[in-house]
Amino acid sequence: MAPIPDTSIVGRLKANCPIEWTAYADHDFVRQLAEGTLPEESFRHYLIQDYLFLIHFSRAYALAVYKSDRLEDMRIAAETVNALLNTEMKLHLDYCSGWGLTETDIVATPESRSNMAYTRYVLEAGNSGDLLDLLVALSPCSCGYGEIGHRLLNDPSTKLECNPYRDWIELYGGAEFQDVTKKAVEQIDSVTAWRIGENPEASGRWDSLCEVFRTATLLEAGFWQMGLERS
Amino acid sequence: MAPIPDTSIVGRLKANCPIEWTAYADHDFVRQLAEGTLPEESFRHYLIQDYLFLIHFSRAYALAVYKSDRLEDMRIAAETVNALLNTEMKLHLDYCSGWGLTETDIVATPESRSNMAYTRYVLEAGNSGDLLDLLVALSPCSCGYGEIGHRLLNDPSTKLECNPYRDWIELYGGAEFQDVTKKAVEQIDSVTAWRIGENPEASGRWDSLCEVFRTATLLEAGFWQMGLERS
Amino acid sequence: MAPIPDTSIVGRLKANCPIEWTAYADHDFVRQLAEGTLPEESFRHYLIQDYLFLIHFSRAYALAVYKSDRLEDMRIAAETVNALLNTEMKLHLDYCSGWGLTETDIVATPESRSNMAYTRYVLEAGNSGDLLDLLVALSPCSCGYGEIGHRLLNDPSTKLECNPYRDWIELYGGAEFQDVTKKAVEQIDSVTAWRIGENPEASGRWDSLCEVFRTATLLEAGFWQMGLERS
Amino acid sequence: MAPIPDTSIVGRLKANCPIEWTAYADHDFVRQLAEGTLPEESFRHYLIQDYLFLIHFSRAYALAVYKSDRLEDMRIAAETVNALLNTEMKLHLDYCSGWGLTETDIVATPESRSNMAYTRYVLEAGNSGDLLDLLVALSPCSCGYGEIGHRLLNDPSTKLECNPYRDWIELYGGAEFQDVTKKAVEQIDSVTAWRIGENPEASGRWDSLCEVFRTATLLEAGFWQMGLERS
Repeated sequence: MAPIPDTSIVGRLKANCPIEWTAYADHDFVRQLAEGTLPEESFRHYLIQDYLFLIHFSRAYALAVYKSDRLEDMRIAAETVNALLNTEMKLHLDYCSGWGLTETDIVATPESRSNMAYTRYVLEAGNSGDLLDLLVALSPCSCGYGEIGHRLLNDPSTKLECNPYRDWIELYGGAEFQDVTKKAVEQIDSVTAWRIGENPEASGRWDSLCEVFRTATLLEAGFWQMGLERS
Repeated sequence: MAPIPDTSIVGRLKANCPIEWTAYADHDFVRQLAEGTLPEESFRHYLIQDYLFLIHFSRAYALAVYKSDRLEDMRIAAETVNALLNTEMKLHLDYCSGWGLTETDIVATPESRSNMAYTRYVLEAGNSGDLLDLLVALSPCSCGYGEIGHRLLNDPSTKLECNPYRDWIELYGGAEFQDVTKKAVEQIDSVTAWRIGENPEASGRWDSLCEVFRTATLLEAGFWQMGLERS
Repeated sequence: MAPIPDTSIVGRLKANCPIEWTAYADHDFVRQLAEGTLPEESFRHYLIQDYLFLIHFSRAYALAVYKSDRLEDMRIAAETVNALLNTEMKLHLDYCSGWGLTETDIVATPESRSNMAYTRYVLEAGNSGDLLDLLVALSPCSCGYGEIGHRLLNDPSTKLECNPYRDWIELYGGAEFQDVTKKAVEQIDSVTAWRIGENPEASGRWDSLCEVFRTATLLEAGFWQMGLERS
Repeated sequence: MAPIPDTSIVGRLKANCPIEWTAYADHDFVRQLAEGTLPEESFRHYLIQDYLFLIHFSRAYALAVYKSDRLEDMRIAAETVNALLNTEMKLHLDYCSGWGLTETDIVATPESRSNMAYTRYVLEAGNSGDLLDLLVALSPCSCGYGEIGHRLLNDPSTKLECNPYRDWIELYGGAEFQDVTKKAVEQIDSVTAWRIGENPEASGRWDSLCEVFRTATLLEAGFWQMGLERS
């Protein structure tokens, strides 16, 4: 089953900006990961920025806890914050050390402009709007990585043997992360029904949600591009 | 025409909590204003707290500017902020001085607990939700004063002759303030259509909007009660 | 050792409002807990409201994660959020069931006005200010419960035998909670040094921090009063 | 007198990042404005993005109203919001029409990524921090334009005769805007004394303020670069 069903809200937001979505999900960075041809320096640059990204990603989920008016939404977001800050970030550092990067190196690296542009856009959309605006701004990341991982792992043209990025592909394509993706997609369906209703496309804010999703998707594509260009 | 038409969103929110609305709009403080029997000390206490209230009311409209995603909503809110901070608050002090209250007295008075409870509830609802949550939390005040003023001014049982509160009644019942009320009611209709759609009652958040409105109405009733009790 | 050392920031904030602090920490509700004479209905009312309080307390710590600019502050706050939402609230319900209260009863109870006044004040102080404003607004609760528990448990006049509230006293006076208190006190020292410097009393905002602390202390006293009056 | 005195807080923040400040204040876009050699297409691109920028700049000052705890700071910020939304933006459109740009063209143009990166960074810094963090993030713009205008207008090498950008230079170098700059510089001095104290460099947050200022300066330089590259 597709990680992001066409009928889900995220599926419908994707369908609204197919060019931007392809520019992100099928970015050269992703293709080169799948082929194992991505320059290692690009991957290292990406890994460092991804660690810095996780800090602001955690802040965004903390904001989601604050902005939830249902206990269930609070709990989901709180588990994510805690997992990110107290588990994932440590695992990420372990993984980085396998690529020769020490925590000292990573923390001393300045945030790249593309990284900053993306995270601040998400946080600001969340502050100025409601929980739904925030979750939609997060969804190209929270749902998109699962789609990309799933596609790469199931695409016969992906090279797994001797691919230095095999573990990255297996992480995001694997059952555990697919389950995370599924839950993120479902939560957005649930919050949309809660904050708008059964016919969100008829709401005045649908265009605005599409615009937030489209912009966040472009900013995610910019994140891959930053990796490729080591900028 | 009724300042808050039954078919407007604020009208429908009112209809959802008739007991709380009556407890506010028909509060003893209001009745005694209409009869001219309200103890002057109660009115003075109310006036002082109302000045402190205006500070946080201005902050709430500033938050509305920040949270608007339509230029038109920003402009309406910005005019309100500026009018409050740079005109209304000065007029309020002039009016207070007619009641023997100096600015020094007023600013030295601590915010009463009922005042604090109301303003912080409104600001927090606005921060955690979206522009609509904020405007709904403000509406018992932004729309309710116009309804109360209109009713008092048009009710034959209201005593205007020799009523020390006549100017208060004429201010809120007068054409200028009725126009402010009308615009506030219309903006909430417009923002509801924008943020939810044409059928807001079918939205999951309708109950939550009703709850915000009901709570803010009770907290407004608490504000009158504070005046009456000089607490 | 005193849970809140006199030289700590919280200790100095306490010293600035001794009357308010006593009104809170030595409130009749607390005395009657220590004597075992508190009416059970008051305790039940308090327990229900305390559960509703924990929801907004969790939101406040989530806001603290968002507002932290040091990873260490984020981690401390994130652990608190997760512990509250995914452990403490369940333990609280278990404890409530020992007092004959079901989750259904609890969740169906409306937030009392004193409860609302306190939580919204804290959240709003945090949103409009910085992390330090937020932690100071939380401190009468996050540090005060530890002081109260420690005093009751070590005061020979406290009646422990056959006191129906013995477990409450032992919880907040016990080693585990004392450690939580110690960490909360130390974090505020650390964040004060970070956000102001070594001489916070010389800062323009010291008065404002004292005012936030004093107000939050009064609102906490109001919470006990609510329990006593079952209001 | 220099628009930004060396002893002012903004002067000290500038001194902390001289390379970044020069990259902004002496950017090729600025030099070409002074020489009258900037391609008109670049200037038009800049004007359009500057209009879109003003929307978020207004939102930032609205946030400053909300985050002020002194009436005087609220009033200054509220006047700015109102002037921007209800006067400046209209003047900007008039000015744009002199360059052949209609409002329809302008509003239909998407926000450039550099524009978005800058405004969202400022708004997010303001939300997560306090009023001082917000004003510092705004200062490369709110104070820097005055410095640039003053320098260009007083530099004998600036070409004013037949320079199509003469009115831009005279606007930002002129007495009225110099006064705006002076007030912005003074407000930051005042808010720093208020939020930190007389020795801000000794505060733990001084490094963080320097970092916010440095980042915002780089993002402003990116805004000129966007104009130059029409990106």
